[in-house]
Amino acid sequence: MRNCGQLFYCSTFGFVSKTDSGQPNALDKKFSVVVQMRIGLGQFDAVVGDLEGNAKRMREIYKQAKSESVELLLFPELAVCGYPPEDLLHKKHFLEENHQVVEKLAADCPDLTIVVGFADLSRGLTYNSAGVLRGGKIEKVYRKGLLPNYGVFDEQRYFEPGHTPLVVTQNGINFAVTICMDIWDNDWLAKFLKKAGRIDMLLNISASPFHLNKIETRKEIVAQCATRFKCPACYCNLVGGQDELVFDGRSMFADATGKIAAMAKAFEGDLLIADVEKTGKVVSIGPVGDCQGQAISTLEEMYRALVLGTRDYVRKNGFKKVIVGLSGGIDSAVTAAIAVAALGAENVVGITMPSRFNSPETVGDSEKCAENLGIRFMTIPIWPVLEQFNKSLEQAPGWDNKGLAYENLQARIRGTILMSLSNQWGVLVLTTGNKSETAVGYSTLYGDTAGGFAVIKDVFKTMVYKLARYINDINKREVIPQSVIDRIPTAELRANQKDTDSLPEYELLDKILRGYVEEDKSAHQLIKEGLPKDIVNRVISMVDRNEYKRRQSPPGVKITPKAFGRDRRLPITNRYNHRV
Amino acid sequence: MRNCGQLFYCSTFGFVSKTDSGQPNALDKKFSVVVQMRIGLGQFDAVVGDLEGNAKRMREIYKQAKSESVELLLFPELAVCGYPPEDLLHKKHFLEENHQVVEKLAADCPDLTIVVGFADLSRGLTYNSAGVLRGGKIEKVYRKGLLPNYGVFDEQRYFEPGHTPLVVTQNGINFAVTICMDIWDNDWLAKFLKKAGRIDMLLNISASPFHLNKIETRKEIVAQCATRFKCPACYCNLVGGQDELVFDGRSMFADATGKIAAMAKAFEGDLLIADVEKTGKVVSIGPVGDCQGQAISTLEEMYRALVLGTRDYVRKNGFKKVIVGLSGGIDSAVTAAIAVAALGAENVVGITMPSRFNSPETVGDSEKCAENLGIRFMTIPIWPVLEQFNKSLEQAPGWDNKGLAYENLQARIRGTILMSLSNQWGVLVLTTGNKSETAVGYSTLYGDTAGGFAVIKDVFKTMVYKLARYINDINKREVIPQSVIDRIPTAELRANQKDTDSLPEYELLDKILRGYVEEDKSAHQLIKEGLPKDIVNRVISMVDRNEYKRRQSPPGVKITPKAFGRDRRLPITNRYNHRV
Repeated sequence: MRNCGQLFYCSTFGFVSKTDSGQPNALDKKFSVVVQMRIGLGQFDAVVGDLEGNAKRMREIYKQAKSESVELLLFPELAVCGYPPEDLLHKKHFLEENHQVVEKLAADCPDLTIVVGFADLSRGLTYNSAGVLRGGKIEKVYRKGLLPNYGVFDEQRYFEPGHTPLVVTQNGINFAVTICMDIWDNDWLAKFLKKAGRIDMLLNISASPFHLNKIETRKEIVAQCATRFKCPACYCNLVGGQDELVFDGRSMFADATGKIAAMAKAFEGDLLIADVEKTGKVVSIGPVGDCQGQAISTLEEMYRALVLGTRDYVRKNGFKKVIVGLSGGIDSAVTAAIAVAALGAENVVGITMPSRFNSPETVGDSEKCAENLGIRFMTIPIWPVLEQFNKSLEQAPGWDNKGLAYENLQARIRGTILMSLSNQWGVLVLTTGNKSETAVGYSTLYGDTAGGFAVIKDVFKTMVYKLARYINDINKREVIPQSVIDRIPTAELRANQKDTDSLPEYELLDKILRGYVEEDKSAHQLIKEGLPKDIVNRVISMVDRNEYKRRQSPPGVKITPKAFGRDRRLPITNRYNHRV
Repeated sequence: MRNCGQLFYCSTFGFVSKTDSGQPNALDKKFSVVVQMRIGLGQFDAVVGDLEGNAKRMREIYKQAKSESVELLLFPELAVCGYPPEDLLHKKHFLEENHQVVEKLAADCPDLTIVVGFADLSRGLTYNSAGVLRGGKIEKVYRKGLLPNYGVFDEQRYFEPGHTPLVVTQNGINFAVTICMDIWDNDWLAKFLKKAGRIDMLLNISASPFHLNKIETRKEIVAQCATRFKCPACYCNLVGGQDELVFDGRSMFADATGKIAAMAKAFEGDLLIADVEKTGKVVSIGPVGDCQGQAISTLEEMYRALVLGTRDYVRKNGFKKVIVGLSGGIDSAVTAAIAVAALGAENVVGITMPSRFNSPETVGDSEKCAENLGIRFMTIPIWPVLEQFNKSLEQAPGWDNKGLAYENLQARIRGTILMSLSNQWGVLVLTTGNKSETAVGYSTLYGDTAGGFAVIKDVFKTMVYKLARYINDINKREVIPQSVIDRIPTAELRANQKDTDSLPEYELLDKILRGYVEEDKSAHQLIKEGLPKDIVNRVISMVDRNEYKRRQSPPGVKITPKAFGRDRRLPITNRYNHRV
């Protein structure tokens, strides 16, 4: 273990022994210039609904923490039931079991003070609570005061807000307990904590979902909190993938000046430890052991979020293997590469399903990509089925074997092959659509959208290219063939098709989409910013009228501030037309 | 027009003329024993996002109301933008246009006092508001105090609550303006209105979605409100289908004793008119014209909700025609019958897609059903495509042409045929799954779940039978062949298949589902109620593990207190297991 704290850390003063009440004893008071204790942040992957499993994991962390002389151990928000449990919170028996698990956890872990998030049913009302476990019992319960109800959050659907601050004293140090959003509004928090008396340190347990660069905001929030309340603060975050969300961990300690003194690992479980020391009224903090707070590039963040989100979705839903339709294009190549990183090459099957519109180059590239990734590869041509379908559909008046319906048919045959193999082998289908095409509906419903998980659904096409290059960089070889990266994007559903036949260039498209989808800008604003009017109007119209496709598409990892899914809830039936 | 009010209605006393301020003038005060005025409830189908269209419709109703001497005209909650506008409310330009439309509406309709719901952006905050339009201007704005955030409602995601009551005086009568949920908590409302002074009548504008028998609850709420505040109350509700919701209208007036004095039409637009009379301090109400408040049976309610929901989804999304896969079973027969009622027989195409597992009887029944309904009918056998698919899939190791994957394949071929015709003809596919099979996942994703709208997705199988008989009853002939009603349920995906091979009897299944899905009961509770333990556990497990299918299924009409969809938000990744 090494001490990587930046602050003065006085270890020569003696420890203060705890009394039963958690107060320093009389002997210590006499010499009470310095008190000291050790805090652990038990960042772990709490699986939604897995009450027993989560408790088991916490007992393991408790043992580890104890062996490292931790005295106060934090677990994330709703660590007992996972986050977000959604309408499980409407089940009374679920809430009751939650409570029983916390009670048992307290009984099993009597030697430390533990702060753990759980869903708490009290007199018919449900709270997002933090239990303070001490001496084998739930000693106190803090109830979250600020309940987020925006973006992906629906907490006001489930919880009543708490109105009472909680300060826990241990070794003469006063800790204010807070949960997630409580520290995101300092003015509210200052008012809320006014009657709480002297506070030496802020504790926060969180379940803060990832998006790109959000860690910077979180660091600011924790730092601002520390400086505002003139005391150290710590932040224990969840880790793991849950449906569309990824929690990236990176729990942290900030000192009273707002400096981030230590940070836990990104995208994996960790136990981050620091010693807190109170000298007179001054409270300082000194991290213990490795502090993995190194900066991560945006691309690395994105990649690791996609890998973790995919791994957790697949495994937590009981699958081991996945299958990916490899078209020879960049989206499926990147998806397969992420799947390999998430699950191992032995658990990924690539399949190419050529028609007469696929060039030998793309078919060759899909095979090369599979070879580079070391995954099993299969070819099932679709033309015999396509021909037969076409024959059958010719019985219907007006059937046109050159139009859009015929293009979609090809994609649907592929979707059906993938789903048939999924059913036969018990493997999950990964879909390969990116955010740009998801936005404008450049996809076939039940065709290329058919599958269990949409790995890159929140990654704009322009970012997919960067991701491909990043994947080759970190592998130090051409995993994704350069020809795939260089090829002009095409769906190959008719002869000589190019994406730009139907769509603007991706650079422009993504710019419009960012403004319209992520920032809720109007056509008028976008045009004022210099974007071409006709294309802006066309793109907005495509986004609006394809809500029905997105509604039936599989979930995928959220990596941007606003993803399609729970994050952006638009009606399908919607006549609003603000094109200009 | 006939006067069907139950209360004493004195029309011999003279009308009080309005002054500009809306107060009775001095002359009237001298004789102020009786004042009287006419109120209209303009229940109409406000389409989400169609600001101009909704305003146009309101101008038409205004003209009609004016011609019937109405002085105070109410429109539903958020009538300007439709309900629920969801994340359109995050677009600043949308909110600004809302306001402009209300201003223009006020200017266009200067001769009546109008209370109209709109989304109101003020100092960066958004409110669910009622504008009081008088003399060509927005005179006052009331902001909804209680914001529902449960079930299908997400109002706290968008709106700030209002804290100030609003009383509007006209002809010497004091009207308290409220919006929807404001009157659902009388204790809150009494406190809220305490400082509002004397109230002669309560006005409520609502957007209250339909479920079976909810009208009884609404009547109680309005009646309780009237008796609690000792004054008449009126309730102006929305009408029309919006994605999964149907608004059933049935606006009403209650007198001060809580008696429902008049009710507007169910499931269609209406202008309900009543005269209010104030004699001293006593305010009475006398309906004018037809009062369509007759009772409707549960089956009629269900049927009309499904018809309206289907019609509005199809038409508001720009479709005229639909296509339904007719299997010869009861679900598709009922779906087609509802489609015919919603859109006309000329706009419905039935298609049967037999395999070698379909008996001649079912194929014959599908044709007979189409004939009875008078719809166009087509047959496209699936066996040639199935055979070719099977050949192609035999290239994959382990492919079994007898197992579940092969069964699903048949359903997916059918889904693909329907979607191909949908694409080719520009018609919407209606899916035919009922609530029982949706719950337990007795369906093939991208197979029978493929389509734009799931008409009976919230109707339990046992109710589908009742609906079939009801449809034959109201048509006074066998629209749905008796043989279809009598047949033992089968998916016909393998030889001699019966639903009960995989599922319990529907009577039992639906009982378990009602308890588990709609009432959030635990396995333990259900077993205590006498339901068989092994089946309860099996059903719960099926419901839980099929969340992923429901997530990718099309929307359909909500008719029960808890439908799958926005109403019930369960995680896909969910390890909670409370089977006993």
